Amino acid sequence: MGAVSRQTEEIMRVLGLFREFGTDDDRWEAMRRPEACDFVYGNPHDVAPQAYVDALVRAAQPTGKDHYAYTMDLPAAVRSVGDDLRRRFPVAFRNEDIHLTNGNFVGLAVALRTLVDPGDEVIFVSPPWFFYETLIVAAGATPVRVLADRDNDFDLDLGAIEAAISPRTRAIIVNSPHNPSGRIYTPEQLTALSAILEEGSARSGHRIFLLSDEAYNRIVFTPNTFTTPVAYYPHSFLLYTYAKTLLSPGSRLGYIAVGPEIDGADELRAALQIGQITLGWAYPVSILQHAIPDLNAMAPDIPVLQRRRDTLVSTLHEQGYEVVEPQGTFYVLVRSPIEDDRRFAEVLRAHDVFVLPGAMFEMPGWFRLSVTANDDMVERSLPGFAKAIAEVSA
Amino acid sequence: MGAVSRQTEEIMRVLGLFREFGTDDDRWEAMRRPEACDFVYGNPHDVAPQAYVDALVRAAQPTGKDHYAYTMDLPAAVRSVGDDLRRRFPVAFRNEDIHLTNGNFVGLAVALRTLVDPGDEVIFVSPPWFFYETLIVAAGATPVRVLADRDNDFDLDLGAIEAAISPRTRAIIVNSPHNPSGRIYTPEQLTALSAILEEGSARSGHRIFLLSDEAYNRIVFTPNTFTTPVAYYPHSFLLYTYAKTLLSPGSRLGYIAVGPEIDGADELRAALQIGQITLGWAYPVSILQHAIPDLNAMAPDIPVLQRRRDTLVSTLHEQGYEVVEPQGTFYVLVRSPIEDDRRFAEVLRAHDVFVLPGAMFEMPGWFRLSVTANDDMVERSLPGFAKAIAEVSA
Repeated sequence: MGAVSRQTEEIMRVLGLFREFGTDDDRWEAMRRPEACDFVYGNPHDVAPQAYVDALVRAAQPTGKDHYAYTMDLPAAVRSVGDDLRRRFPVAFRNEDIHLTNGNFVGLAVALRTLVDPGDEVIFVSPPWFFYETLIVAAGATPVRVLADRDNDFDLDLGAIEAAISPRTRAIIVNSPHNPSGRIYTPEQLTALSAILEEGSARSGHRIFLLSDEAYNRIVFTPNTFTTPVAYYPHSFLLYTYAKTLLSPGSRLGYIAVGPEIDGADELRAALQIGQITLGWAYPVSILQHAIPDLNAMAPDIPVLQRRRDTLVSTLHEQGYEVVEPQGTFYVLVRSPIEDDRRFAEVLRAHDVFVLPGAMFEMPGWFRLSVTANDDMVERSLPGFAKAIAEVSA
Repeated sequence: MGAVSRQTEEIMRVLGLFREFGTDDDRWEAMRRPEACDFVYGNPHDVAPQAYVDALVRAAQPTGKDHYAYTMDLPAAVRSVGDDLRRRFPVAFRNEDIHLTNGNFVGLAVALRTLVDPGDEVIFVSPPWFFYETLIVAAGATPVRVLADRDNDFDLDLGAIEAAISPRTRAIIVNSPHNPSGRIYTPEQLTALSAILEEGSARSGHRIFLLSDEAYNRIVFTPNTFTTPVAYYPHSFLLYTYAKTLLSPGSRLGYIAVGPEIDGADELRAALQIGQITLGWAYPVSILQHAIPDLNAMAPDIPVLQRRRDTLVSTLHEQGYEVVEPQGTFYVLVRSPIEDDRRFAEVLRAHDVFVLPGAMFEMPGWFRLSVTANDDMVERSLPGFAKAIAEVSA
């Protein structure tokens, strides 16, 4: 018996390449150099806006002796979230359906643990966010991978989802706008998905729940619009984080909004509250909860992100790359001109351009760019992209 | 199959009374009234000190574009913690032994998951902190309860610990200063404990680890001194939170410091890092990490807490209560004058005095007071305590 538990070893195995890549200190150092063009993660590459800093400074001022006390779901914060959700979506969320979390990472962990037991299966779409499989395994369930429909702009492959549903299916994770393809699922697709989940639930004699990871639901490029899957399938959890909208992933803040007509609503509400507590007091810190009304009023600068997207998509396309144009999210998917995406990432790195190899998100042969790279990085990177493709094509 | 997983139902069962008590909105409302004397939790009852607010305001100012980016263990924060630990304790902690966490709740969850698998046993001392058993169950292991030595000021019952060690024992949680008794374990006890754990490890052929929950290691009353168990048993994790020292439990901030000579140090370091990530990005938020050097320089106002302790201990003793004088922590343990501590808590509540019934922490027949109640509450409560004991003695 070694020092480390088998459950942790299993998680380290599932994390695989990401573990090695994401915790490589040398790479992080190299990416922090001023000459680096860093497209790797959805991280800020401009100093935080003054309005954001001001909101936190205001929220630091004590409103009373409870300001820094144990803070569960602060009523003023929950009301603000409820107002925001009801304004934006055709779903009659009640304030009691909202559970504040310290980010979607924990939100997913809490929702999964609330729903699944060993032997249960959870479906997710590949290419996925890095940690779905890990979180499903950590919750004790079995991940079931369904490929996105790569021939149709990474839409949901509804036939594949239907085929993946078994008597043990407990939940499906849907991520729209989709990281890394930027795809937003249409009302037609969501209607069809809902029918499949209803039929699957009826067949297996228990409810299949939908976990709607909406980290990017406010990062949507003109003229696209976003539709929440919760409006189509009431047995859903809407999982949101402010990390992307406000480009502040170091400020862990998000929420779970449970579909108001979900099966077992009362039972689930109590269980989620216990999950928030027992997963390690997964409530946002006081200062961020107090800032929520201000933060809900802030919007991402979509035109800036869209301009970067357009520059990268069109220039890389001209340079000979195959590029997927995203409808939303921070990301641009690009096919590696050589099969080995990790090797091509090293070729780009030699030109001080840092990208995320597709091997990290189950798409070997591709790589991902984040348009959170600042304007200067985008401009400086273009000759590097051109040289890199020329080098490997030579 | 209901909506909620069996693992969550089991956690709700283990939480038992605490779940009902801790999430009782009416009680929370009643405790918030200005006339309430609230001794229930280690929560602040004075407005946060200006120095604390100033530290957060300073930490909100961006130091660069990475200020609000994904923040793992910020090197400046880790160095500050390392300096602080090396100054205070005779243990040669290296900076790489330190893992920042968003509080001890998550710290314990991460440490437990790193170490235990189903079938493993984890020993804890009763009366315990509310969530030890829950966190052990949530990590998949089996809790093994050992009673504190109630005839000897709640010291460790070393014989009982030795008897509780089985071939499946993986870890023991030790909490000094001890919530709720306020006991600080002596060097002699810790030396003996270390020998027992060494022998147990040798007998079972695998290492038994010690999780040292030191939430209160800076809340120590004159003339007592605190000694860290890590100095006596190298195979230890020191778990710390700033919540108590700075009376700010809503600011989730803490760390795990691994004994530098622990068995499997390299393996454990990698596993803890993965645990921090996969338990839901269990790193403190950026603003709190940036504040750590300032926060490490702040000290709790021990004389104020000690004066409240002295007032409560001596006055309640004079009124006829049996009281345990704590050496540290926020807490004063008092025997309920009637067997039913929950009923007596209601008698006190009728006098606007709110206490934590012993049933919540495995000590039926007792109740706990927190000296974080402000001076005014302490003074106003004294006639209430007198009337309550008179009423039930009549």
